[in-house]
Amino acid sequence: MINSSTDFSYCQLDDDTLHEECGVFGILGHAEAATLTALGLHALQHRGQDAAGIVSYGHSAFHAEKQMGLVGDHYTDPATLARLPGVMAIGHVRYPTSGEIALRNVQPLFAELEVGGIAIAHNGNFTNGMTLRRELIAGGAICQSTSDSEVVLHLIARSRYASSSERFVDAIQQVEGGYAMLALTRTKLIATRDPIGIRPLVMGTLDGKPIFCSETCALDIIGAQYIRDVENGEVIICELQKNGSIVTKTIKPVSKKPERLCLFEYIYFSRPDSIVGKRSIYTVRKNMGMNLAIEAPCREGDVVVSVPDSGTPAAIGYAQESSIPFELGIIRNHYVGRTFIEPTQHIRALGAKLKHSANRAVIAGRRVILVDDSIVRGTTSLKIVRMLRDAGAIEVHIRIASPMISYPDFYGIDTPKAEKLLANQHPNLQSMCDYIGANSLKFLSIDGLYRAIGGKPRDHLNPQFTDHYFTGHYPTRLIDQESINKNHTLATLRSSC
Amino acid sequence: MINSSTDFSYCQLDDDTLHEECGVFGILGHAEAATLTALGLHALQHRGQDAAGIVSYGHSAFHAEKQMGLVGDHYTDPATLARLPGVMAIGHVRYPTSGEIALRNVQPLFAELEVGGIAIAHNGNFTNGMTLRRELIAGGAICQSTSDSEVVLHLIARSRYASSSERFVDAIQQVEGGYAMLALTRTKLIATRDPIGIRPLVMGTLDGKPIFCSETCALDIIGAQYIRDVENGEVIICELQKNGSIVTKTIKPVSKKPERLCLFEYIYFSRPDSIVGKRSIYTVRKNMGMNLAIEAPCREGDVVVSVPDSGTPAAIGYAQESSIPFELGIIRNHYVGRTFIEPTQHIRALGAKLKHSANRAVIAGRRVILVDDSIVRGTTSLKIVRMLRDAGAIEVHIRIASPMISYPDFYGIDTPKAEKLLANQHPNLQSMCDYIGANSLKFLSIDGLYRAIGGKPRDHLNPQFTDHYFTGHYPTRLIDQESINKNHTLATLRSSC
Amino acid sequence: MINSSTDFSYCQLDDDTLHEECGVFGILGHAEAATLTALGLHALQHRGQDAAGIVSYGHSAFHAEKQMGLVGDHYTDPATLARLPGVMAIGHVRYPTSGEIALRNVQPLFAELEVGGIAIAHNGNFTNGMTLRRELIAGGAICQSTSDSEVVLHLIARSRYASSSERFVDAIQQVEGGYAMLALTRTKLIATRDPIGIRPLVMGTLDGKPIFCSETCALDIIGAQYIRDVENGEVIICELQKNGSIVTKTIKPVSKKPERLCLFEYIYFSRPDSIVGKRSIYTVRKNMGMNLAIEAPCREGDVVVSVPDSGTPAAIGYAQESSIPFELGIIRNHYVGRTFIEPTQHIRALGAKLKHSANRAVIAGRRVILVDDSIVRGTTSLKIVRMLRDAGAIEVHIRIASPMISYPDFYGIDTPKAEKLLANQHPNLQSMCDYIGANSLKFLSIDGLYRAIGGKPRDHLNPQFTDHYFTGHYPTRLIDQESINKNHTLATLRSSC
Amino acid sequence: MINSSTDFSYCQLDDDTLHEECGVFGILGHAEAATLTALGLHALQHRGQDAAGIVSYGHSAFHAEKQMGLVGDHYTDPATLARLPGVMAIGHVRYPTSGEIALRNVQPLFAELEVGGIAIAHNGNFTNGMTLRRELIAGGAICQSTSDSEVVLHLIARSRYASSSERFVDAIQQVEGGYAMLALTRTKLIATRDPIGIRPLVMGTLDGKPIFCSETCALDIIGAQYIRDVENGEVIICELQKNGSIVTKTIKPVSKKPERLCLFEYIYFSRPDSIVGKRSIYTVRKNMGMNLAIEAPCREGDVVVSVPDSGTPAAIGYAQESSIPFELGIIRNHYVGRTFIEPTQHIRALGAKLKHSANRAVIAGRRVILVDDSIVRGTTSLKIVRMLRDAGAIEVHIRIASPMISYPDFYGIDTPKAEKLLANQHPNLQSMCDYIGANSLKFLSIDGLYRAIGGKPRDHLNPQFTDHYFTGHYPTRLIDQESINKNHTLATLRSSC
Repeated sequence: MINSSTDFSYCQLDDDTLHEECGVFGILGHAEAATLTALGLHALQHRGQDAAGIVSYGHSAFHAEKQMGLVGDHYTDPATLARLPGVMAIGHVRYPTSGEIALRNVQPLFAELEVGGIAIAHNGNFTNGMTLRRELIAGGAICQSTSDSEVVLHLIARSRYASSSERFVDAIQQVEGGYAMLALTRTKLIATRDPIGIRPLVMGTLDGKPIFCSETCALDIIGAQYIRDVENGEVIICELQKNGSIVTKTIKPVSKKPERLCLFEYIYFSRPDSIVGKRSIYTVRKNMGMNLAIEAPCREGDVVVSVPDSGTPAAIGYAQESSIPFELGIIRNHYVGRTFIEPTQHIRALGAKLKHSANRAVIAGRRVILVDDSIVRGTTSLKIVRMLRDAGAIEVHIRIASPMISYPDFYGIDTPKAEKLLANQHPNLQSMCDYIGANSLKFLSIDGLYRAIGGKPRDHLNPQFTDHYFTGHYPTRLIDQESINKNHTLATLRSSC
Repeated sequence: MINSSTDFSYCQLDDDTLHEECGVFGILGHAEAATLTALGLHALQHRGQDAAGIVSYGHSAFHAEKQMGLVGDHYTDPATLARLPGVMAIGHVRYPTSGEIALRNVQPLFAELEVGGIAIAHNGNFTNGMTLRRELIAGGAICQSTSDSEVVLHLIARSRYASSSERFVDAIQQVEGGYAMLALTRTKLIATRDPIGIRPLVMGTLDGKPIFCSETCALDIIGAQYIRDVENGEVIICELQKNGSIVTKTIKPVSKKPERLCLFEYIYFSRPDSIVGKRSIYTVRKNMGMNLAIEAPCREGDVVVSVPDSGTPAAIGYAQESSIPFELGIIRNHYVGRTFIEPTQHIRALGAKLKHSANRAVIAGRRVILVDDSIVRGTTSLKIVRMLRDAGAIEVHIRIASPMISYPDFYGIDTPKAEKLLANQHPNLQSMCDYIGANSLKFLSIDGLYRAIGGKPRDHLNPQFTDHYFTGHYPTRLIDQESINKNHTLATLRSSC
Repeated sequence: MINSSTDFSYCQLDDDTLHEECGVFGILGHAEAATLTALGLHALQHRGQDAAGIVSYGHSAFHAEKQMGLVGDHYTDPATLARLPGVMAIGHVRYPTSGEIALRNVQPLFAELEVGGIAIAHNGNFTNGMTLRRELIAGGAICQSTSDSEVVLHLIARSRYASSSERFVDAIQQVEGGYAMLALTRTKLIATRDPIGIRPLVMGTLDGKPIFCSETCALDIIGAQYIRDVENGEVIICELQKNGSIVTKTIKPVSKKPERLCLFEYIYFSRPDSIVGKRSIYTVRKNMGMNLAIEAPCREGDVVVSVPDSGTPAAIGYAQESSIPFELGIIRNHYVGRTFIEPTQHIRALGAKLKHSANRAVIAGRRVILVDDSIVRGTTSLKIVRMLRDAGAIEVHIRIASPMISYPDFYGIDTPKAEKLLANQHPNLQSMCDYIGANSLKFLSIDGLYRAIGGKPRDHLNPQFTDHYFTGHYPTRLIDQESINKNHTLATLRSSC
Repeated sequence: MINSSTDFSYCQLDDDTLHEECGVFGILGHAEAATLTALGLHALQHRGQDAAGIVSYGHSAFHAEKQMGLVGDHYTDPATLARLPGVMAIGHVRYPTSGEIALRNVQPLFAELEVGGIAIAHNGNFTNGMTLRRELIAGGAICQSTSDSEVVLHLIARSRYASSSERFVDAIQQVEGGYAMLALTRTKLIATRDPIGIRPLVMGTLDGKPIFCSETCALDIIGAQYIRDVENGEVIICELQKNGSIVTKTIKPVSKKPERLCLFEYIYFSRPDSIVGKRSIYTVRKNMGMNLAIEAPCREGDVVVSVPDSGTPAAIGYAQESSIPFELGIIRNHYVGRTFIEPTQHIRALGAKLKHSANRAVIAGRRVILVDDSIVRGTTSLKIVRMLRDAGAIEVHIRIASPMISYPDFYGIDTPKAEKLLANQHPNLQSMCDYIGANSLKFLSIDGLYRAIGGKPRDHLNPQFTDHYFTGHYPTRLIDQESINKNHTLATLRSSC
């Protein structure tokens, strides 16, 4: 019996972390399309643990499976995979944005068109999504969800072009923001990135068949070869011919600007074994740690310790550069369970210990250099410092391998409100340090970060990356934000189904 | 964890029974709107056991709950009802049509409109639903389901009229077929029936607040008063004023024709305690049995037995008219469970015994007159006759309290294909009787049926009821059927979610 | 994921009904043993809807499946049946006694013995169960449940006899009360009834293989033949020989007394199509109604109406004897769902309508003779009378087809506390009638009941049946009750698992 | 609806890893006993992810909750904790041994005794468990499970001593093997370790109340203080007095021998932040890596890489000692899900990649020193080496931070059959190396391991630790193994419930 009201999210919404909303994967022409998509999504699980969906096309019909929970909970069941026949499939993993955890919002989304059906899977956010949605509803469209992805689907459905690929191109020319998107029609797999390439998308191949996915780690898991990144503003259309061959063409419908990938893909989101923009994430993060050791040395430190797992590569870099030993000073408990709630007030005071614990043998009596990838609200840092002191640390020096976050994101990262950010709650660095309770607190400079990635400092006239969370310089217009004072509200359906 | 793939239907699709697709209930202005809707749906459960949904409006938002399973499985949970605040609600129970048992198809359906949202609940079927749907998709609409109800929602969304009620009226003027429909906006409860009133809908009142529902038994369960039937082709709009009062107006946008209610509401669908078209269903069915006793007597019979529960009123009528005693010769097992599958070939041969068993004490050594309400394919009758003979019946004389079914329905009844109907598989009555294995088989005449209901025989020029399954005379055009040779197919999504 | 805390019981504990605790079924030597057991349990479902279990022996091991819910919910799944291999099986359906709805209490129970394993399934209650349990614990036994059945298992395990069948006989000689019990060893199916045969058990055969079950309806469903009742105090041992033949022997270890079957099997528990003590339940109940019509006529009545389904045979008998027409004046809603809770105070006042509704066409303006099988607390009768009056009944005359219940049961019927019984809350019949709100209230006499069953009045020196609930004459000692003042309490485990 | 047949185990049984069977936690006298127990079990989750159970005593009754799955899945639910009232509780986490994943086997186990109830939670295995069980069954005991723990419960129940603590001591004097055990009576929390202390157990305190748990990490998570290890052969009895104070006494019923803790607690089982036998697990493992670097250097290596997470501390030690940089060369995917099955043959060939992936930036073109904690069957090592070569490793040199495993365990570690162990499948080290496909393969010596822990080499006459898996010297008699040729089998119940 389905009880659509009892949804679970795998991990609690942790408001002291940034969250990417999605990962995507698609393949065309392969006999094990759905299975390979499931495996690719498993490798992209870190980009979204709330829900996963796959749509395949085969036996003259589209087939959809959508499930709350991890890929490994459902998509390894042969019965589930058997309901996804065909040689072409796209899939999606999702991070739960608050209040939207119902199954109807799980991607890929599907629309039946006069010219045949189309399914889309989308990572990112449109800066004019709300505005477009309002126009669509005024024009008689029925929206099932509040997701941006559905907006694209309506634009495709309403396009006056004949073919599904032309309609897709027509639709993405109307949206603005940061996105990587896949579409599946009865014969085509289409992939695109936004005009400045804020969200990542790579192209690979297995047994000669094309694959598109958010990160290269999804290629590695199935033994596929990396070909190249999808370019910013590019639309790649792979079409399965009747003879089984695949014809690939690429178009660039939007006037191309220089690529500006989101810095947080390097800092936090991507898996360390992925290659993003031709650079190893692990190496970039080690570089960040090394640059941090140069910019913000701490010669009195006895030991370099990371907040696992995201801070570890930078900590290793910091340790190597500074010749201070790296040790496992904090142990992470990975068995957190689907719905771990800190149960009582008494327990809540125990704080970060549910996920992390101090390794007393490394910490006690030491001056600890604590390396982390970033600070959002600072509440976790505060708990970690207290935990380290309880474990006997004499001093705790925090080194953050990225600059202070001061501005919200509108391109697919779930950031807290600006006023909740640590950097906006304190007049200066010392005040932040005092709040957290550390002996010192230092951040990597924006140029140190740029150099860790590309070897060069930030070009202030033409920044090489998307970096507004640090600088306030948004790479595109923010249309929805501009209209937000109009305070136009639509009737809402609150539904758990 | 939601596993949207493991749907259950309460009862197996039994292809030897006709199935109504739905029951609806709505109430405006009552503090316990959702609870009363749940109770009303419970009383209408015989019209659909697959799924139930309720949409309420309150606290400036619409709220939806949809669940597979029985009303009593979910909607008595105070937590579920608490998620349905407000003084206005509509609800729906559904029969599972094959392959469409996913949650996304459960009604009421909702659309956000420029002028505010609207929810609709629908019983029936449009004869031009597929045609309209094709036009809508050509016009860029995205259909989530294959249900007719969604077509209406799109017509409302695309209407150029300003208010939601005008849009509703605009929409229903474009559909044809048999329907009873409720709509809920932020201030209004709207009810309508198709131009010739094929599907039933009644109006009642509780504590001065208007209620609409498929049958009067849903009024009785909450102690509400019956006011009148919604007329064929009528639209009743009840609007909640700011002062809490309710203004009701009625419009008749379509040129009115004489009402022709579906005969199967009398024969099978409606609950015996309901009043349909001012007539007691129980009394009508007893009359059918009495007329049958006059038309098709069986003086050699020792005992009158019914196939429970639907055949019982007619059997009582037959017994009273013929003065042959009525006995419980067949016992029904109501504990059939949600997914009772006849497990092995060996067991399958046991046939109808899982649901019915013969009461040997009544049957053995007797000449049994077996009364049932109707015969669809005859497979159940065949098993029942065999079961009665195994229990020692000397003779089995079948008397059916309605005419032979020879034509399919397109107004909301799920009939098997025409060639599967018993009447179409045999050249004559004797052949049918032989197939079933009875000593004799007789049906009530069409005039006998008409007389049982309205006292008069069928007016062949202007039949008083919808009766095409017996006569082949469809009361409306069958637009989708006419276009079916064009064999236009759309891409389909096969999804369990 | 098993969450053992979220048990459901199919139907709410209705404290105005008597409940039998169990039904049992066993078969030896048949290739489809588990499937046939599942079907037999399905036919016995009315004896317990809370849970069902089957133990089979095959492939040199015992196999158990136990499930909360209906037989049809689980045991028609081929995968479940495949986990129950072998040619011998016993099964059990259970009624939920308050607070004991956890899976660990579901029968059959199993014990590994030195001489091989044994499984038992038990219907009934021991009058010395608590006393034996206390002695067993003092002797070092570990009890997993509070069920009487486990006591027998411990007595078997501790018996000094060699063979499992001798141990079984040894064990049942130590218990007192009312029981029908089946046991399964690696080669034997054993069946027994208590010394005076309070609980029923019949023997049948299918394809030459022995079957034991609580009622004959479980034979009918699988097309098995009824052989005879297991006699009171008899132990029948069927042993599967290596050559596949079956040797059956019978022993009577306890000094045999005359049989005294529980009258409530006739009045309420057994299915109308069952044969109990060689008598048709349906015929007995009709006789009860006929005798009631003679003892307590109501000539002013216009119509005879029953409380469905249990009161219907008596009502038909009353109607035939009195020549007042029987009509379906009350309609029962069978779709009550698994956990139907009457949700709010407002709704609770609606009372019996959730399960029953009045058929106004039959009731309005009539003087109604309402026939029911028994009255326990009277709360349901009160609601039904009110419902009939609301539906327009001019007069309501209640006729109960059994005597007043005044004493609790200790042999397997779940009765409310004595002081809650209607008969004990009022000084006289008129007071009861006033409380219920009827125009008249009459009960069948104890002699009228005896005559309906056996043709003779009660033999007061040697009553033919167990009838203490009416007469206070308990057929055995009540050992636990005698010791209850000692108020000996044991440590209890409150567990939902 | 409980469907007891659909159990899940969190992680697949991975037959190339050793598995500890359990973790235990108990607390006496604390107002939040159940909550603290849940948190302690969460910290011990690495010792068993299959199921968790808690028994508390309060309000004059024992209360049990047992759940399949992770602690965090259920025991953070306030409703679950509310069903566990009282100031005393014990809990247990369990690793699933094959075929025993049913809920009835989840600990703590409970027995009602004449002197009041007792619950026990047990980590370890008895070497005479099967023998005792056979004797108990011969004596009439009914065993519900095949677990050793139940044997102790029966010995307690049958003990002739009066008090529960005397009975407990009486019982443990009859068992042999390796165990750490907790017992809870109505007033006492009792803790004990086996005579040579194979399995660990520590004592701590929070707010002055005694705590016992498998590892110190369970004290750290709740901010409790470590007091001391429970000594081998010691029984500590903490009794709650009526005035709320706690009286602790210790007895040593068995003749005490020197402690010999299981080496695998140091090598693999315990969490790196735990203190076992007064030694930091993390420091011991780093020492193992350092000793390995000295014993088995690899000067041609470019980079030290670990198999995460268990091999990482040794790899850091190896890197520090050898001055070859430690890098994250293998990334672990922690989102494996509850039932991740490698779905098809094609996919199975992908091997270890589902859990691990190579970090190409670190591996490609490098001579890799791969450090792991141990090798069981070698199948994982083989896959990892292949994965590293696919990622471009020029050479792969495996260094194992413990000796070769050659003998099975009988003290609570789930080892594969002896002939499946890598060391037993090959004539010499080179053959193993060839099988795995490495350029070189070296193991730490037994003396190197002993020195890493205690600073001294193995004392061959009186070994300081339990080390039979490496040496074949079992620290106790193996009574069940000795009698296994007798091939005595008991009837078994195969049940999923």
